[in-house]
Parts: sequence; structure tokens; C-alpha cells
Amino acid sequence: MDPFGTYRSMEPRGALPQQARVLDATSALEEDEVLVDVEYLNVDSASWRQLETSTGGSPDALAARIREIVDEAGKMHNPVTGSGGMLVGRVAGLGRHRVEPPVGTRIATLVSLTATPLVLEDVLEVRPGSEKVRVRGRAILFRSSLYAELPDDLDDSVALGVLDVCGAPAWAARLVSEGMNVVVVGAGGKSGMLTCAQAARKAGPGGRVLGLCWPENTAIAAKDAGAEAVVVDCTDSIAVLESVTEAFGGGVADLVFVCTNVPGCEGGAILSCDDEGEIVFFSMATSFTRAALTAEALGKSCRMTIGNGYVPGHAQLALDLVRSEPRLMERFAS
Amino acid sequence: MDPFGTYRSMEPRGALPQQARVLDATSALEEDEVLVDVEYLNVDSASWRQLETSTGGSPDALAARIREIVDEAGKMHNPVTGSGGMLVGRVAGLGRHRVEPPVGTRIATLVSLTATPLVLEDVLEVRPGSEKVRVRGRAILFRSSLYAELPDDLDDSVALGVLDVCGAPAWAARLVSEGMNVVVVGAGGKSGMLTCAQAARKAGPGGRVLGLCWPENTAIAAKDAGAEAVVVDCTDSIAVLESVTEAFGGGVADLVFVCTNVPGCEGGAILSCDDEGEIVFFSMATSFTRAALTAEALGKSCRMTIGNGYVPGHAQLALDLVRSEPRLMERFAS
Repeated sequence: MDPFGTYRSMEPRGALPQQARVLDATSALEEDEVLVDVEYLNVDSASWRQLETSTGGSPDALAARIREIVDEAGKMHNPVTGSGGMLVGRVAGLGRHRVEPPVGTRIATLVSLTATPLVLEDVLEVRPGSEKVRVRGRAILFRSSLYAELPDDLDDSVALGVLDVCGAPAWAARLVSEGMNVVVVGAGGKSGMLTCAQAARKAGPGGRVLGLCWPENTAIAAKDAGAEAVVVDCTDSIAVLESVTEAFGGGVADLVFVCTNVPGCEGGAILSCDDEGEIVFFSMATSFTRAALTAEALGKSCRMTIGNGYVPGHAQLALDLVRSEPRLMERFAS
Repeated sequence: MDPFGTYRSMEPRGALPQQARVLDATSALEEDEVLVDVEYLNVDSASWRQLETSTGGSPDALAARIREIVDEAGKMHNPVTGSGGMLVGRVAGLGRHRVEPPVGTRIATLVSLTATPLVLEDVLEVRPGSEKVRVRGRAILFRSSLYAELPDDLDDSVALGVLDVCGAPAWAARLVSEGMNVVVVGAGGKSGMLTCAQAARKAGPGGRVLGLCWPENTAIAAKDAGAEAVVVDCTDSIAVLESVTEAFGGGVADLVFVCTNVPGCEGGAILSCDDEGEIVFFSMATSFTRAALTAEALGKSCRMTIGNGYVPGHAQLALDLVRSEPRLMERFAS
């Protein structure tokens, strides 16, 4: 058995599970797999937005569409956005060569739902405005699938929300240094807030963290995360550039994080970044070709990084960040 | 007038030209624009492949589809792949504030066709197997649009082919260092060959450059570029991993370049890269979400970079590389 779970890929056979259209989620547990009784799905923000828009957003329609996707694909892989999310559940069984996590442990998956075999028996609760979907179902983790034990001191919803986006602050911790001018595009969402808070710590009093927000009512979240909030439509490239140069006295950013959940934010990010700077794209609505070709079209030589959701130690770093920032904690608890 | 040409974006109005669905390619020349009499389009490899597949590949069908795209969008922007290519032509006019390049100069655009206003009067010649399309038409360059004067000592076709992909070897020059183990996925194509040649120079005798090729008849090109050629289906992630570990005696690569023109090469690249390593994606068939989520799903923390086609000095570097490597020169001339 390979550690990646390719043996469960039905279509195409032998593909990596993330890339398969259909996973076998029903065969018996293999020797190094983990069986999870699923309690919640936490659907990725870009996927959730697409589901709301395409179904009209009623709980019944959302629940039906989610069941339909999972029944067809054997995983919660939104075919339009290509994105997934993560889940929370309790370990229900271990393959015969597997020793952790102990049966009964409550865990959150850190591997995307697009790579997690899933069977849904029922969708129990969908609430408008929440990406958290209460379900009854079973999921499978492979040997390579990352997970985190849920901490005792935090509410489920807080831990879920934080773990879902914990790659973003880890990249901020890695790349921001003292005195930098940082821009966070989409600063009012979950990954944006964590990125702002971590960036503000690392940039220090000599640096700046500008949090671009849209719509206006998300600005308070960015401020709570320690950013200077600026309200601007992040898909309007020229407006973004103007906001950034105005705030930075004519200059642009050393480092840009894109944490939005809407398409079309590449141009503003690229214009806002210094030629020697770097952009880290976390938004699942990012288009590879649009980013590459826009930079080329604008003659901008900045580095552009695909926000890899896995950075060693990311879960602990993000949880500790929220534990130490009461206003962030409130945001994630609400 | 802004330097980016947003004033020619019709749909949506004011968008960056690369992101607009429709450009105004017919209005009078603005003060800092350049008018170009177009001779050739050099269609991007991913786009070309899609056009061939979707039209059946006959010259007439290809020509008709190209005209249709340009008539609708005011630019050669393949709506399926999102990619473009570049063009060669002669400067026919300058806006009243514009002083370069002199009228009559033969240039190649380094800005993508997806951001270049274009009117086609005729498609003169389409040849099966060639991405070069001879046309009669007019294009417009903005103040920010990059171009290169065509060198006297090289055939058009060589210069075009090299300039089209000159970002790739520039990244190899920037990132490869002595003794590195480098993998080039899709080593038999144009960008792959240049990347192999540049990587081999920088890695030196203590390093290795493994060129993964498919189909088998492209292996000779990778060898000519100085790589150790390995024939493997680059969309088969597990087969790619096995080829790489076999060649590197159990290890994986420090640096991976993805230069293919087919979708589905992200998984093999990610599996072939060290956790501390870096992958640079040049293929326009790369999926952002697939790359991000596959890395996360596999628990791989490698750095993943969007191959920005613009690196200062890239055109000169790539042309000099081909000038100094007779076997590469032959390949680009054929």
C-alpha cells in the first residue's frame, strides 16, 4: 500500500486522491488507514461561496448539493472551484498496522476534503452564513494524511476555523521580517485575520501591515487582527494600487498575501508588490495563468508563491496565535 | 493614460487588459502606445494543443478558430486555457509621446497575447505541428508592454521560439546552484530544453539534471540540452516519483521545473521535490488549486512558485544561451 492512498482512486485509477474524480470511500479499512466518524465538514470559503450562489443559498438546497457531490465523487470536492475544506470527527477504527491516533480521539483533518474519502449518511444541519455543516458520515485518512488532535481548551468552532487556514499565518511567520511593508488582500476573513496578526508581530513597530477589506463591514475584523484597515474592492486592480500607494506614501509592498475568496484579485496584488518583493496566494480562487500572465503583461518581476497549506508546525503556531490574542479569539468564537 | 492600457478594456471596463474579456483594438493610437504590423503569432503551447484537439487540427479549422477568438476578444486569448503566446512584427507607428522603438524596427512582444490588443485582417498560413501562425494584422503595445528587438544574427523562428519561453532559463539561472539535483518535467519542449541547458551549467559537474520526457521521441531533445533524459508519462505521479528516486539513488530533487504543456503534472512534481526544495511551475496547464491541495494532501512543505515570465534580462540570457549551444540552436532552428 502506498502512503498516499492512490489505491482508492477509481477515476482515473491509480491517480493521487486529490486529482481523482472519484474515490472509493466504502471498501474495508486498509492496514495503515484511519476510520473517522465525521461530525462536521468545514467547507472551504471559495467552495462555500460558489455553492451558495449556484443553489440560491437555502439550507435544503445546500444540503442536497453537498450530498450530491459526495455521493458522486466519494469526497467533498467542489467540481467548480476545485476546492474542499476539512472535517472534524472521532477516530472510530485503525488499520492493523496503524497505532495513532487512539480510537476515540477527536481530530480535525489538515488534509483537504478533496483528498479525503467520505461517505455521508445524512446532512444534519446547514446554517446560512456558516461554512460548518453538521453531518453523519465516515471518512478515511491515509498514512500521509495530516490531522490535528482537537485541543481541550478551545471550542470546536474556534479550533476548526483556525486549523482550516493555519498555513497562512505560518507563511507570514516565515517571510515577514522587521520593518517590512506588508499588504494583506482580503484581511477581514479567517485566513486574512491570522495573517495580519502574525505579520504585525513580525513586522514590528517599524513595519506596516495594511489590511485591504471588502465589503466595508469586514474592516473591523482586520483592525481587530492588528492591521491598518483600508476598504477597497480587491478585484479592482487600479483601486487597490491607489489605496496601497496612498497608504505607503507613494511606495508599494515588500510582501503581499492574498487571502480573499473571490476570483480576480491577482492584478491588484501584483501592482501592489515591489519588483523585488513576493506575493503569497492563499485564495483558492486564484488563477495560475492569470497570475503568471498578468505579471508578465505588467512587466513585474515579483516572486509569486502558491500558498502551500502545509508548513511544519503550522497548526500549533496558529492555535497559539489565537490563544494569545483575545480579540482574534472572540472573532473565531463568534 | 495609465501605463497598463486599462483604458482599452471593454468588458469589464477599466480592468487590466490581461483580465478583460474584450479589448478595444481599433481606436486611434494613444500618446504612449506603439502600433505594430503583425507578421506572425507564436501561439502558447498549451493553447495550441487545445486548439488542435478541439478543432481536429486541420489548417482551415485552426485558422477559423483563431480568427473567431481574435474577432470576439480583440486579442488572441484562448478562453479554455486562458493563455496566449507572443507575436513578431514591425513598428508601424508611435504615439506622440513615444520615442522607442523606432518605426520600422522588427520586434517580438514579450508581453502575453492575452494582454495585447490585436486585429486580424487575414490568417495567411497555419502549418500542422507548428505553433507559428503567419497573419496580416495590427497590434498595440502599451507603455508597460515588454518587447525585444529581433536580433540580426538569428532566424526569426529561432528568436521567436527562444523569446517565447525566455522566463524559464532565467529562473534556472536564478535558483540552480552548484551540486544541486534538478528535475525538469517536460524536458523535450522549448522551455524544458532551455531550462535543462541553463540548469546543467549552474549545477556543474557535481550536480545532476534529470529531464523527464514524454513521448519517447522527445528524449533526444532533452539530451541535446544537456540533461539525463528519462522517458516517463509526466501525468502519472507515482511513475514520476519512481523514475526520480531510481535516478537519484533513493532521493528526490532540490529543485523541480515544470515545463510541460499538458494538465495533471502537479502531483509528480510535488512527490519528486524535497520538503525543503522548490518547484517552479512554467506550464500554463498548471492548476493553482491542484498544486496547493495536492501538496497539502501529501503533507509536502516544498515551496511552489508561479513561473513569472518576466525576469529582468531574461531575453538576452536566453538568446545568449542558444547562441553558445550549437545543438540547442539546431533544435530551435528546425
